Amino acid sequence: MALKERDKKHLWHPLTQHKTHPDTIAIVKAEGCVLTDEDGNNYIDAIASWYTCMYGHCNPHIIKCVTEQMQQLDQIVFSGFTHRPAVELSEALIDILPNNQNKLFFSDNGSTAVEVGIKMALQYHFNKGEKHNTLIAFEDGFHGDTFGAMSVSGLSVYNGPFEDFFLKVVRIPTPNGKNHDLIIKQLSDIVNTNKVAGFIYEPLVQGAAAMQMHDTHGLNMILNFCKHNNIITIADEVMTGFGKTGKHFASDYLATKPDIMCLSKALTAGLLPMAITSCSQDVFDAFYNDDLSKGFFHGHTYSANPLACRAALAGIELLKSEDMQANISRIIASHQDFGQRIETHPKVASIRQKGIIFALDLDIKMERYGNLRDKLFHSFMERGVFLRPLGQTIYILAPYVISEKQLNKVYIAIEKVLDRI
Amino acid sequence: MALKERDKKHLWHPLTQHKTHPDTIAIVKAEGCVLTDEDGNNYIDAIASWYTCMYGHCNPHIIKCVTEQMQQLDQIVFSGFTHRPAVELSEALIDILPNNQNKLFFSDNGSTAVEVGIKMALQYHFNKGEKHNTLIAFEDGFHGDTFGAMSVSGLSVYNGPFEDFFLKVVRIPTPNGKNHDLIIKQLSDIVNTNKVAGFIYEPLVQGAAAMQMHDTHGLNMILNFCKHNNIITIADEVMTGFGKTGKHFASDYLATKPDIMCLSKALTAGLLPMAITSCSQDVFDAFYNDDLSKGFFHGHTYSANPLACRAALAGIELLKSEDMQANISRIIASHQDFGQRIETHPKVASIRQKGIIFALDLDIKMERYGNLRDKLFHSFMERGVFLRPLGQTIYILAPYVISEKQLNKVYIAIEKVLDRI
Repeated sequence: MALKERDKKHLWHPLTQHKTHPDTIAIVKAEGCVLTDEDGNNYIDAIASWYTCMYGHCNPHIIKCVTEQMQQLDQIVFSGFTHRPAVELSEALIDILPNNQNKLFFSDNGSTAVEVGIKMALQYHFNKGEKHNTLIAFEDGFHGDTFGAMSVSGLSVYNGPFEDFFLKVVRIPTPNGKNHDLIIKQLSDIVNTNKVAGFIYEPLVQGAAAMQMHDTHGLNMILNFCKHNNIITIADEVMTGFGKTGKHFASDYLATKPDIMCLSKALTAGLLPMAITSCSQDVFDAFYNDDLSKGFFHGHTYSANPLACRAALAGIELLKSEDMQANISRIIASHQDFGQRIETHPKVASIRQKGIIFALDLDIKMERYGNLRDKLFHSFMERGVFLRPLGQTIYILAPYVISEKQLNKVYIAIEKVLDRI
Repeated sequence: MALKERDKKHLWHPLTQHKTHPDTIAIVKAEGCVLTDEDGNNYIDAIASWYTCMYGHCNPHIIKCVTEQMQQLDQIVFSGFTHRPAVELSEALIDILPNNQNKLFFSDNGSTAVEVGIKMALQYHFNKGEKHNTLIAFEDGFHGDTFGAMSVSGLSVYNGPFEDFFLKVVRIPTPNGKNHDLIIKQLSDIVNTNKVAGFIYEPLVQGAAAMQMHDTHGLNMILNFCKHNNIITIADEVMTGFGKTGKHFASDYLATKPDIMCLSKALTAGLLPMAITSCSQDVFDAFYNDDLSKGFFHGHTYSANPLACRAALAGIELLKSEDMQANISRIIASHQDFGQRIETHPKVASIRQKGIIFALDLDIKMERYGNLRDKLFHSFMERGVFLRPLGQTIYILAPYVISEKQLNKVYIAIEKVLDRI
């Protein structure tokens, strides 16, 4: 029986209404930018499997490193113990993170990285003798699906059953170059009437909000306001991290650095789940005390899994390489050319780009998980391209190793599909 | 510089007050039951690295399967797509789970498996048109460190900064063979005054509560009460799963099966992080609807990671093998002999055993993370045995492949250390 048939018996897929969803596609092989299904069809993975496999699927360097690690040390409790992959990763990652980041705390996915960041912000104030109970977040932010992470996500599809149990969160709009005074006024009102622990934000590009981009200067102004008001800033770089914006991290575009950063997805080069919440020395120092109870009593069993650490270390080696940086520059330039070409298409309402992230909005309103969106998805798949439209937004976020020929195939698929809707 | 020195610069370890904590130990190799540190010292891993590596570290069968998988397919979005390792794992796992379990939902660790379970229970009622806002949990249960999971954990060390943000949870004591009437009375009161969505419990053995064990008949009675009162039962088998209690799952000892089960830790044979929340067809059916919004809109990027699925599948093959089942029987018998010997030791207050889980309580009161507990830990390490006392409880939960000679070394280390405290 085909895998896609066997799949139906026992598997419950994420973000899926199984009654109305069409059959799943069974992928049997992935190499570089190409996915192969069980019927032998090939697809270009133009969203890098949710922004993870930036150095290409089954990258030989990553596989070699992880295979070696697997024969040496698979797993060890990370309380009271340490190991070489975690130590070497910490040195390599701190080297490329913004200057003020100095400590790394491990967990397993973006949601838990955010939970850790929120808990650090709350306990930071608590340890200094003040209970701050409010968080600030952007209106359309998305930070994950656990209760803490859901609470700060403004963009929440179908949260009805859970919203009675959320943390206290106040939302502000993203800066658009015209609303700075309004945002500062709102922030002033918020701090005057609440004890604010932290501000969590996706810097410059909001992924789940369909690659919405906002103003660098405005975000910097918000971060400055937070610094002056003792509000811990938490940059959720789960999507933006590791080169996608054209710099190693989106925070590199900003003069004011975050107190805490959340990392996952491309962190492990698309091989394995892992997340890191990094922070400044100041945040760490608030927990460093003779009083045991001021420590951070959070922990996951596979924290700092040696295989995932080794994959992440190999990923950073690739990211920093001349080849990969040249790939990134090449994709940025190609997207700019394509942007000029597609901007005038009658079905395109607007385009935007940050680094290798390219998005266009259609001039048609669509449901986030609706039928037209599904039809678009299948039109791309029929043309051998895996793109995953979000509502009326089509975006490209391909692995850095995508060739010019493959990239052109993606562009042409978009143009052809647009011509026909 | 030694790894344990380099470790201090940037790593923030879980469940650790860094100011008072002694140096970490850097492990450079793990094979079978033996860990080797950077100074060449060997230790028997008598807690299987937090109950994960049950088939031994760097198990050749597991490594072979994962190495093959890594060259074929590393990662693919699990919304709209599927793959062989997930399909084959689903078939193998459903085959050994209690009969009523029929669907699997993936996440990355025990905390998220619990968040998924809680969200399923809440939305189950919500989808049927009723908002149930209360959960029932055991007094000393532990279910993880994210906000939802923390909420249901009765055993929560230092939750002060977070407890204002917890879900509504009512606690009941564990059944001890003498308090059945009391518990049923409490449950009746709870359902009379609350809209209860679910009951979450660690079946038969509570891990973080220092391997506390409770009464099978009493738990069965509680589960029956829940069934009759439309309360979704959630068995957290993250610690107990995959053979540790002497059956594949602790729930196998109970006549009444849970609606939902949470699995992690040994699920992936100690190689990689992954978790699964399984459920009955009845739970799944409550989400299966033409109305999109009744679907379960939860998802993590690396859900059903092919490598982790392949490791889990290989793990189940090992668990079911005659060799491994013979190992489990052998360890159970050895523990029984040791129990008889140590029970009369003047420093031992009590012993208990379920399957390969053996625990003894000292007749000395100790802080969970205090100095005497640390001294005990180091006394064992000096004798080449990794045991991790929880307060005054010393427990053994070794890999199934531990030899009789290694097991005797663990027993003797305990006896010698007890003689000297």
